[in-house]
Amino acid sequence: MVGGGEGAFIGGVHRMAARLDGHWDLVAGNFQSDPDKSIAFGKSMGIDAARAYPDFRTMAASEAKRADRIDAVSIVTPNSTHHAIAREFLLAGIPVICDKPMTTTLRHAHDLADVARQTGLPFILTHNYSGYPMTRQARAMVEAGDLGAIRIVQVEYAQDWLARDIPGNKQADWRGDPSKAGPGGALGDIATHAFQLAEFVSGLTAETLAADLEAFVPGRKVDDNVNVMLRFGGGAKGMLWASQVASGSVNGLRLRVFGDNGGLEWTQETPETLLFTPLGEQQRIIRRGGAGASASAAYATRVPGGHPEGYLEGFAQIYSDAAELVRAHQEKREPNAFSKLVPGIADGVRGVAFIEAAITSSKANSAWTALSA
Amino acid sequence: MVGGGEGAFIGGVHRMAARLDGHWDLVAGNFQSDPDKSIAFGKSMGIDAARAYPDFRTMAASEAKRADRIDAVSIVTPNSTHHAIAREFLLAGIPVICDKPMTTTLRHAHDLADVARQTGLPFILTHNYSGYPMTRQARAMVEAGDLGAIRIVQVEYAQDWLARDIPGNKQADWRGDPSKAGPGGALGDIATHAFQLAEFVSGLTAETLAADLEAFVPGRKVDDNVNVMLRFGGGAKGMLWASQVASGSVNGLRLRVFGDNGGLEWTQETPETLLFTPLGEQQRIIRRGGAGASASAAYATRVPGGHPEGYLEGFAQIYSDAAELVRAHQEKREPNAFSKLVPGIADGVRGVAFIEAAITSSKANSAWTALSA
Amino acid sequence: MVGGGEGAFIGGVHRMAARLDGHWDLVAGNFQSDPDKSIAFGKSMGIDAARAYPDFRTMAASEAKRADRIDAVSIVTPNSTHHAIAREFLLAGIPVICDKPMTTTLRHAHDLADVARQTGLPFILTHNYSGYPMTRQARAMVEAGDLGAIRIVQVEYAQDWLARDIPGNKQADWRGDPSKAGPGGALGDIATHAFQLAEFVSGLTAETLAADLEAFVPGRKVDDNVNVMLRFGGGAKGMLWASQVASGSVNGLRLRVFGDNGGLEWTQETPETLLFTPLGEQQRIIRRGGAGASASAAYATRVPGGHPEGYLEGFAQIYSDAAELVRAHQEKREPNAFSKLVPGIADGVRGVAFIEAAITSSKANSAWTALSA
Amino acid sequence: MVGGGEGAFIGGVHRMAARLDGHWDLVAGNFQSDPDKSIAFGKSMGIDAARAYPDFRTMAASEAKRADRIDAVSIVTPNSTHHAIAREFLLAGIPVICDKPMTTTLRHAHDLADVARQTGLPFILTHNYSGYPMTRQARAMVEAGDLGAIRIVQVEYAQDWLARDIPGNKQADWRGDPSKAGPGGALGDIATHAFQLAEFVSGLTAETLAADLEAFVPGRKVDDNVNVMLRFGGGAKGMLWASQVASGSVNGLRLRVFGDNGGLEWTQETPETLLFTPLGEQQRIIRRGGAGASASAAYATRVPGGHPEGYLEGFAQIYSDAAELVRAHQEKREPNAFSKLVPGIADGVRGVAFIEAAITSSKANSAWTALSA
Repeated sequence: MVGGGEGAFIGGVHRMAARLDGHWDLVAGNFQSDPDKSIAFGKSMGIDAARAYPDFRTMAASEAKRADRIDAVSIVTPNSTHHAIAREFLLAGIPVICDKPMTTTLRHAHDLADVARQTGLPFILTHNYSGYPMTRQARAMVEAGDLGAIRIVQVEYAQDWLARDIPGNKQADWRGDPSKAGPGGALGDIATHAFQLAEFVSGLTAETLAADLEAFVPGRKVDDNVNVMLRFGGGAKGMLWASQVASGSVNGLRLRVFGDNGGLEWTQETPETLLFTPLGEQQRIIRRGGAGASASAAYATRVPGGHPEGYLEGFAQIYSDAAELVRAHQEKREPNAFSKLVPGIADGVRGVAFIEAAITSSKANSAWTALSA
Repeated sequence: MVGGGEGAFIGGVHRMAARLDGHWDLVAGNFQSDPDKSIAFGKSMGIDAARAYPDFRTMAASEAKRADRIDAVSIVTPNSTHHAIAREFLLAGIPVICDKPMTTTLRHAHDLADVARQTGLPFILTHNYSGYPMTRQARAMVEAGDLGAIRIVQVEYAQDWLARDIPGNKQADWRGDPSKAGPGGALGDIATHAFQLAEFVSGLTAETLAADLEAFVPGRKVDDNVNVMLRFGGGAKGMLWASQVASGSVNGLRLRVFGDNGGLEWTQETPETLLFTPLGEQQRIIRRGGAGASASAAYATRVPGGHPEGYLEGFAQIYSDAAELVRAHQEKREPNAFSKLVPGIADGVRGVAFIEAAITSSKANSAWTALSA
Repeated sequence: MVGGGEGAFIGGVHRMAARLDGHWDLVAGNFQSDPDKSIAFGKSMGIDAARAYPDFRTMAASEAKRADRIDAVSIVTPNSTHHAIAREFLLAGIPVICDKPMTTTLRHAHDLADVARQTGLPFILTHNYSGYPMTRQARAMVEAGDLGAIRIVQVEYAQDWLARDIPGNKQADWRGDPSKAGPGGALGDIATHAFQLAEFVSGLTAETLAADLEAFVPGRKVDDNVNVMLRFGGGAKGMLWASQVASGSVNGLRLRVFGDNGGLEWTQETPETLLFTPLGEQQRIIRRGGAGASASAAYATRVPGGHPEGYLEGFAQIYSDAAELVRAHQEKREPNAFSKLVPGIADGVRGVAFIEAAITSSKANSAWTALSA
Repeated sequence: MVGGGEGAFIGGVHRMAARLDGHWDLVAGNFQSDPDKSIAFGKSMGIDAARAYPDFRTMAASEAKRADRIDAVSIVTPNSTHHAIAREFLLAGIPVICDKPMTTTLRHAHDLADVARQTGLPFILTHNYSGYPMTRQARAMVEAGDLGAIRIVQVEYAQDWLARDIPGNKQADWRGDPSKAGPGGALGDIATHAFQLAEFVSGLTAETLAADLEAFVPGRKVDDNVNVMLRFGGGAKGMLWASQVASGSVNGLRLRVFGDNGGLEWTQETPETLLFTPLGEQQRIIRRGGAGASASAAYATRVPGGHPEGYLEGFAQIYSDAAELVRAHQEKREPNAFSKLVPGIADGVRGVAFIEAAITSSKANSAWTALSA
């Protein structure tokens, strides 16, 4: 693991997620930019002192040489460092699990895509919401034609934790600093999740967008509210709203997809159910583990329906899929088909293209702007 | 009543709404464009034969001369005829209750506003969703500053009854015919409700919009899906989505308003509750008739909380408010302050301005367009 | 109307309900026990002075002699007076619409049943919750075998308005006075609704019950919390809970019925939907006016689905059914089949039998007790 | 671990739960009654061959002698074997984590309690629903007096997976066999959870009960539907319903507690929120990790609110609490106060007393029966 030291939020999540299904052990890391703190933190995690590294380059180089080298590295640092770190490990021959957004510029994204292609190594991007059984269920239903031709995609991701300035909060600080988070605020942090989920489930590709970004909190350097209209290939239309100042919202990611033959709705805060209405019929509540669940949803499931799985389980699925991709790569075989649903380099490029197009459009008074990837 | 004869949907609704609170009796009407059918329908309603009129001009002229003349006329005809009919009755000295949208052109809307101003007569526009106690509650809370300064207004109105072509359906037919419904489809029929509600509750004025209209169903002459971004006076931003092809949606009007100090959410299909979250505190469920209900909400209430009121009661409130405005006018006194919350000529002008701006913007590839009213 | 004068709650509800569908006009009444007040109230309702009666006997006698006599009387007085008033009107040849519980003793209930049978007149009991479209839908589905053989019936009715003593509240006062309300508190006021609904929907007959009644509020003379276990004919089992001290509950009537092939759930506070799960299949949300709605539900419906109907509409259905029964009786024809779903004398007898059995059982330390009707 | 071999459901859950928070490693076990299969399964789990034991007695004896002995044993076998196994390990000096119900007879329960007391070793009973943050929140609120004096406790646990006979299902088979599951069916499997949760949250002690047990599915040897009325010390009343034949129910554990000053409601299938209404005030939605969360709830929490935790996290909490109890015991110190909320031997005795009283009462035609523990 690179990143995820003291005070980090997402590092601990990655570690629990990696642990849950029993496929990963944490054996090496460079946890903080300060070498001493990194080594101390590694010790506190019970890691062999020799493998608690002072910096990521040393880690990549050293691990590459070990017989018991790590199977993959998990990168959970601020966005602006993803590119360099991921590049280093890939070139050292080590598969990468990387937090999103993949990079802070489209140039970097394309470069990383090139490196990944050249090395042929597994690259997993932790768009964790596509690890939930019911988002995979939704995707399977769209793919199977249960909704008919898709016309409308509405997606939103509303939070309120940045509704006020919160000086001294480590999470808020780096996310509000363009040199660390990249040019997008809510755009990079949560709108990319919403965007990825919309494409993941609908199977559509957004071609152009018109965006109106806003920073409501005085002094904020990046957007905290994102209004976007979308036009997809094939003629579907959509809207995307992401906000970190929507007072009263917690982690409100919600996706609705409507086709000419049916519609569905999924809400992250109640992730175990999917609402599905075949046009003209009764609405159905599809439950994880219940009747009508897809094979891909079942694959991403641990316990019977009614025993709620949630955020950590969805995140764990990403790690389990990653384990399968890495093992298959090691064993030179095809991975399980369902594990290939895990987001990767292509999603990463799309996400950064989305960020750049939204910023470009917003600066051009919401002119329709193509996603150049 | 003008309109609302056989096969009409909204006419029957108006009659039930008018009856519920006991303020109105149906005593005269021109119910259909065919004179004979109009007279026959009037009889079936138990109306004095002399007051079942063959056309609206005769009705206006005749009623104006009677000692027991009608207190007001209710206009429930297709949109394109509202202007002429309303004008006729106002000029005959008869107050008007008119269905929305008020007219099909902004020119007509302004003209009607002028006539109403000159005659000084009450003019009520049946944007019925602002008759619900909890939308009035929401407005009162925004007004009282419970949410702080408003930053974000998200409103949507999703239906699916036009997801397929339904030839021979009287409701669908005229709504899809620009010569009767005006240039907007979902735009005029439901987006205007959403727009009015957003301004009614937030107390804000939308200044410009960027719209992307679409007609998904082949052969349809008017839009059936409406994507709009909004910029309000004072800096708030918003999005409005209206669709009549959102498979699985029934009558999904939903409004969310977020300020720097709190947020609220109201959903028409469960109209008895309002979700309110003061920033950083627990979310509250405010119930009609329950703790914290505003005086304006109480005024619009018939039975105790937990005994659901709904669509007809909200609509009835419009008629009860109209009764108070008309009575006060007759008695030359100020009407009850809460009754003045009922939508009127200004809302009508705003609605038509919204329709025109959305069409203009959409034709200009979603360019930001001012609402010229 | 008898009862429903100043300060009454249910009288106003009955009047709105009677008015909504346009079948009834209020033309005569004895609204309060004080003759002068009754007459004054009648005037305020716009009733002909000659028909605002000082007492119910005068009313029954006078109306019986008029050519334009009332089509039916609506009795909305405290429970203990129902028997005498209903008897008087029936014997005067006037159909009766009576609030529940029908009487305060089983002897009176049987007597009234005898009188009704002898006169052959329509007798309607306003168990209004069986007027909702979706409770009729539920009944139709059970009847059609959609749930298979019924095994379990769970019903509850939770309120909290009597969680504390509220001296001076007119509604609370008479309901807490056994001489007016009868021996049951929550038992008579709301548990009878729950009981009637359970039998109405399930089509089953409760044969025995074991009850544990409690008066939690110090000084209260009647029960305010009702725990009951039920055994139905055919072997089904059930539980009934009714409370007026369940802090935080408003008007929480909820029914669940489970058969060997499916289950359903209905909640009064969101009355427009019915949850139905065929065993082993996806849960469906059946909406009023939507796919799969029964003919009996459609009959009890005014506006399209998604335009919420509620308490007043359900109550209005009772009055519309009553109108059809009364008209059919006048015209010596069979009434519409669906109108016969309206509760009547048999439900009244069952309700009082339920009250008596529950009191008997509770006094016998919850011994299983037969419902002797 | 004892039990939890191939085909077992709960064994895998225990292993994931133990792993999630990183406090436990699986290092030894007797996974199946067949010695060879047990050893093979142990290997598949990556356990040292020497510690994959052929039977539990060998395991207890061998582990007791090792320097690196297990810190605790987890017992996940059918109910009838819990007593002997738990006894063996306690007497070998090894702390026990045991699935519920603790034993199948009250005699055995008392015996185990005696042994536990004598050895002074930690004994944890996996009533996992008291590991959820929001059930601990509920308990803390009751304890703090937020609800006032408790009057009413309603608890239910509805499933439908046994609505039909499912021959060949390993889970169903042993649960339906009194020689393995004990005398209770739904009673032991799920009603004990409901009962434990009711006492855990309310802080009350059920003194007597009146039960009506039923086996609806033909040929079933144990109950599948449980109706119970409860009387608590201090005068509160309650009802408990548990069913495994409630068609359409999945894992519907729901608890409601009402005091003279407020009420609360928690539902297992949406475990992240708690509904709380102070009498006469607005209802609040208390969210895990949100405003008003208790210290005990925060202690049982991994990720921020809005990132759903669920069944595995609740279960993991039991294991984390167990780790703290075991560590504190090893280190001869007081454990963290919040970890002591974990259920233990006393809950086990109460659960078995509940089962026995319910069976006794039901056989005596629902006579009120004391819980003799």
